[in-house]
Amino acid sequence: MNKITSLFKIKYPIIQAGMVWASGWRLASSVSNAGGLGIIGAGSMHPDILKMHIEKCIQATSRPFGVNVPLIYPEMKEVIDILIQKKVQIVFTSAGNPNIWTSKLKSSGCKVVHVVSSVKFAKKAEEAGVDAIVAEGFEAGGHNGREETTTMVLIPLIKKSIKLPLIAAGGIATGSSMAAAICLGADAVQIGSRFVTSNEASSHINFKKAVLKAKQGSTILTLKEITPVRMMKNKFYDEIVDLYKKGSTPEELSKHLGKGRAKKGMFEGDLEEGELEIGQVASQIDKIIPSSDIIREIIQEFNSQIKNLSSIKL
Amino acid sequence: MNKITSLFKIKYPIIQAGMVWASGWRLASSVSNAGGLGIIGAGSMHPDILKMHIEKCIQATSRPFGVNVPLIYPEMKEVIDILIQKKVQIVFTSAGNPNIWTSKLKSSGCKVVHVVSSVKFAKKAEEAGVDAIVAEGFEAGGHNGREETTTMVLIPLIKKSIKLPLIAAGGIATGSSMAAAICLGADAVQIGSRFVTSNEASSHINFKKAVLKAKQGSTILTLKEITPVRMMKNKFYDEIVDLYKKGSTPEELSKHLGKGRAKKGMFEGDLEEGELEIGQVASQIDKIIPSSDIIREIIQEFNSQIKNLSSIKL
Repeated sequence: MNKITSLFKIKYPIIQAGMVWASGWRLASSVSNAGGLGIIGAGSMHPDILKMHIEKCIQATSRPFGVNVPLIYPEMKEVIDILIQKKVQIVFTSAGNPNIWTSKLKSSGCKVVHVVSSVKFAKKAEEAGVDAIVAEGFEAGGHNGREETTTMVLIPLIKKSIKLPLIAAGGIATGSSMAAAICLGADAVQIGSRFVTSNEASSHINFKKAVLKAKQGSTILTLKEITPVRMMKNKFYDEIVDLYKKGSTPEELSKHLGKGRAKKGMFEGDLEEGELEIGQVASQIDKIIPSSDIIREIIQEFNSQIKNLSSIKL
Repeated sequence: MNKITSLFKIKYPIIQAGMVWASGWRLASSVSNAGGLGIIGAGSMHPDILKMHIEKCIQATSRPFGVNVPLIYPEMKEVIDILIQKKVQIVFTSAGNPNIWTSKLKSSGCKVVHVVSSVKFAKKAEEAGVDAIVAEGFEAGGHNGREETTTMVLIPLIKKSIKLPLIAAGGIATGSSMAAAICLGADAVQIGSRFVTSNEASSHINFKKAVLKAKQGSTILTLKEITPVRMMKNKFYDEIVDLYKKGSTPEELSKHLGKGRAKKGMFEGDLEEGELEIGQVASQIDKIIPSSDIIREIIQEFNSQIKNLSSIKL
């Protein structure tokens, strides 16, 4: 038992990231059933769809699960009402100000966790009264911070700045990297990319296969002028590079990004025109397996890593 | 004993990075005397100065020490002759092709280690016959790779690709991050920024104090069009940003960089006009102490971290 497993009443300190277009009730419930914390990613769901996913998740697991809500979500009030009405126990918020909804969620009995990429926002989230922090490094997939601080550096910095339980994210896909994150001061890990290639993720099979093929340098943090995002290099990215070369304005970049790129890539499987959000660890992932097997592998490797380490005395 | 401590005949698997303008014989010999591997950074030395530093280092320590040589050094032949003549036992090469000098150095009895930031160059260095690899992540200070792969992701990738002993660099300044690097698959760590703020580093006191003040986001990897370098944001960096905004060419950037910026900043202490090469971990460093104390602190924290970890069983 540690701070995070007791906070969430879960077996393993492994949290599945709530990823757009990848994490519906199937993934969330299977991760929770395997002893981790499964999370429904609300970012890509209309409120009625989210409600359906929560209902199905409740049916599919008796274990705790959570919902991730980006605070820039257009229909926040409706989403919060659904979360409270459906008695969701754990809410992860990201991409916005934790002051606005934290107290309402907490007074309804929710545990609230906020995702940050900087010391500054970790402190703000602590002041806002959240129960735990996810600190996400530069190597993480999807939307990310502007400071470019890597997990290796960010976790000790945030650990020193706050008292709350701390979940490390970015660059973690195996038991070894989980052990590394614990060494850095994390109480648990949040894993995204690895679960994208689980059987239960709703990501398109083309995208899952593209993740398996990824190598070092296949992803990049780009579009820093709009919202920084780590994604795979593809035709769409090449077009962004051309726009940068022409000295395009943020408005021109936004226009080219348009709407629906993420869905097109990750859910519909268009590997050329779509936005394919994934972390640098994609380069370490080489198979599509059930999420319960992912968790089993991670725990086994973690335990053997800890055993090896315990024999070192300098 | 592990692969690296037995290769170099040192007590602790801690290697002090050979940094320009920071690591002369004083730093190298004091690190070696404290049980790590001290390294003279030849990159900022004329051949006769290097020779003097090697001679003084031999007088100051009976323990093994090394010399770091960037392979783009203009007077390589003279440097290699000095290394062989002075019977330097350990040479770290970086920034260039390891095929050219490795066999000559090895046939003279040297251990040769090559610094890389990618799987591709790790494999090339292994083929060239080096004895070990330093893999350096995106968060490291100074010159760096183009792939932007962080230490958390890079170390497991390279570990899987080569059989040689592996030294992790980038983001490591404490016993906790050292333990994390070992979890990721490293046999040892190379530490730069932390030793910049040691009493024995030849870095200017203004620069040392600036490192203590650094916070998250104080450094950035820039000048990717010339040679990527991680440095502190200062007036010189602001000027680079202006040049980027104007759409300057790599030639214009090179012209503005000019010659002697690194010396001006790190050795002469001009914090405005100088180039201040340092890693993201600068944000974790808060005191100037002897390098022997740095090593003692790191080892103590490492051992206590390992002890804590060994009590975890999932």
